[in-house]
Amino acid sequence: MQDFKYYAPTEVVFGPKSESQTGKMVKKYGGNKVLIHYGGSSAERSGLLQKICDSLDAEGIKYVKLGGVVPNPRVSLVRKGVELCRKENVDFILAVGGGSVIDSAKAMSLGVLYKGDVWDFYIRKTFEKACLPIACVLTIPAAGSEMSDGSVITNDENGLKKDYCINEFRCKFAIMNPERTYSLPAWQTSCGAVDMMMHTMERYFSKDDDMDITDNIAEALLRTVMNSVKIVLREPENYRHRAQLMWAGSVAHNDLTGCGTTGDWATHNLEHELSGMFDVSHGAGLAAIWGSWARYVMHENITRFARFAVNVMGVPCDFNDAEATALEGIRRTEQFFASIGMPTNIHDLIGKDITDAQIEEMADKCSNGNTSTVGGLKVLKRDDMIAIYKMAK
Amino acid sequence: MQDFKYYAPTEVVFGPKSESQTGKMVKKYGGNKVLIHYGGSSAERSGLLQKICDSLDAEGIKYVKLGGVVPNPRVSLVRKGVELCRKENVDFILAVGGGSVIDSAKAMSLGVLYKGDVWDFYIRKTFEKACLPIACVLTIPAAGSEMSDGSVITNDENGLKKDYCINEFRCKFAIMNPERTYSLPAWQTSCGAVDMMMHTMERYFSKDDDMDITDNIAEALLRTVMNSVKIVLREPENYRHRAQLMWAGSVAHNDLTGCGTTGDWATHNLEHELSGMFDVSHGAGLAAIWGSWARYVMHENITRFARFAVNVMGVPCDFNDAEATALEGIRRTEQFFASIGMPTNIHDLIGKDITDAQIEEMADKCSNGNTSTVGGLKVLKRDDMIAIYKMAK
Repeated sequence: MQDFKYYAPTEVVFGPKSESQTGKMVKKYGGNKVLIHYGGSSAERSGLLQKICDSLDAEGIKYVKLGGVVPNPRVSLVRKGVELCRKENVDFILAVGGGSVIDSAKAMSLGVLYKGDVWDFYIRKTFEKACLPIACVLTIPAAGSEMSDGSVITNDENGLKKDYCINEFRCKFAIMNPERTYSLPAWQTSCGAVDMMMHTMERYFSKDDDMDITDNIAEALLRTVMNSVKIVLREPENYRHRAQLMWAGSVAHNDLTGCGTTGDWATHNLEHELSGMFDVSHGAGLAAIWGSWARYVMHENITRFARFAVNVMGVPCDFNDAEATALEGIRRTEQFFASIGMPTNIHDLIGKDITDAQIEEMADKCSNGNTSTVGGLKVLKRDDMIAIYKMAK
Repeated sequence: MQDFKYYAPTEVVFGPKSESQTGKMVKKYGGNKVLIHYGGSSAERSGLLQKICDSLDAEGIKYVKLGGVVPNPRVSLVRKGVELCRKENVDFILAVGGGSVIDSAKAMSLGVLYKGDVWDFYIRKTFEKACLPIACVLTIPAAGSEMSDGSVITNDENGLKKDYCINEFRCKFAIMNPERTYSLPAWQTSCGAVDMMMHTMERYFSKDDDMDITDNIAEALLRTVMNSVKIVLREPENYRHRAQLMWAGSVAHNDLTGCGTTGDWATHNLEHELSGMFDVSHGAGLAAIWGSWARYVMHENITRFARFAVNVMGVPCDFNDAEATALEGIRRTEQFFASIGMPTNIHDLIGKDITDAQIEEMADKCSNGNTSTVGGLKVLKRDDMIAIYKMAK
């Protein structure tokens, strides 16, 4: 068992009328002038932005707005936001949207107080931590950014996708209304479910076999997500199961499912190159390569893969053959992904064959030109990455 | 499903060497002059207090000490601590111990900044919230006070045991070293396990049947505690399972297991009168009456009791007879309590028969002279309380 720190200070306000508390919460956490950061026009059309503005008005809190965040959020917009915050003397950033918007808001919150360019953080040129307070009104459950310490930003000049993680990034509060997710398309709903499953599984598939409470909670969470996503795909306005998914997305990534375990994260690293190269949805990319990763690394801890098969995927345990049990678990996971419309190989993900040259390029990037590794359960070098990408073709 | 707020800001530092970080953590949260609050001499004898003092010295943080906290912590000592804090200009309170010490520290932290008597909070004479920052080095896992918002104090003048709950009571940080719990006697270990189970079960046995993720996590936690306590009773120095119990105690009471549910808490209320009258251990008192409470209220939500029986107690589901399944679950819970040395009736708890007059007196106190009720799954009046106490005789 690993020593651990657990820190999840975000105040969650969960329920259908939670948005009306936005103004009060901003006030509680000391905001006087807010930047409302969001994505496309759906936040406007749905009336959500107006509701938030009304709530801020009611508390006498001033605000400016900046929309336009896209999936795989761009550093160019972050820079624009930093300028706006400085010009308008913003002291609080409120993200209205999903993981991309929150990650973009986190980057801005750092950039405002930093003299150099905000990309410096993401390439480890600086390690400062001072940032404006951030909070969010969550509309897309998946990324878990509403309670996490991380931000992933894409540099639109060179296509690099990089992360920065500090506790100061944790949202002061997160407003969650499951009704806001009724309109999420099936594809995005499924991508989100895969993402939250993978946040749990990246922590679960670990060298460590002795943190029972964390493992048991992780398995409970995975079963819940698998059940609820099936139901909301049939019934998009099912409050109960939209709520399960929304809360599961937060719990999956607030570190609770990693207390005492080392974790792995190779699938996330391998996927970042896929979405960097092909601009595909993160969740779909994860589904496309997980099975290949699992088959490649499972012998590092075959009992854990067997346990997953039995406790999460409902495979009858073959007590004489852990490998057969493990493999059936991987197979059923892929079948589950397919059943919610997700790809389980790269061809289905990008709609065409991937070339060997593209695989080499991704492995180069993922290994920083064969100078670094990814993974915890099995440490993967460039050659391993190529092997997994090829298995997933 | 109920709307909910979730707020668990305590920074947890978990592992065998975590105590050496005490000084750094106090500094991080702004403490300059610390009151170290603790119970008996075991913290001195074990060398823990010295270790903490060394860690504070290393950061140049000054401190004074106040020991003497007893189970069911007394308001008299709290008042003494308040005087000491004022005299010494203490600005940070560090509890070293279990729930009683932390609850006592919480009460003090309020009292220092309040002009009147600290008991005023517990009898709802005032509702102020300003308090000094509190943190803890946990040595007895059970009460969950290290992450909870509550403090329960006993007034030694009139025997009343009352609580006060505010978010300001949540510890800034909690240092947890499972090795410190190796020396816990079997009785106290079992009492702790029952207490953490009941913190989960009081939230689980609810009118609500639709918060799947919370229910699934609660069941996972209960199974973990039941497994680990059996092992540590045989092997008191089993790090892995002492660690499960220590972390389970926090998660069981930081509200995670209650997100979206109403909860009940009648067993806790009924028990407070028992430990008030007979000064018995809280965990043992809970074990002594839970089964009687469960049989009395189970028809309010028989499917939930059946679910508990199947998913937690491993009872085969009788699909044609939910009541039989539910009853078998209650029976097995009592068998489990007995198997870890806990009483399952009041006679075994107090070592003699309880009189009808004593039962009436407890019911009077618990119902505030027949003016208030307890419970959420079934609302219990004075007569219901008497019936349950009699069932549990």
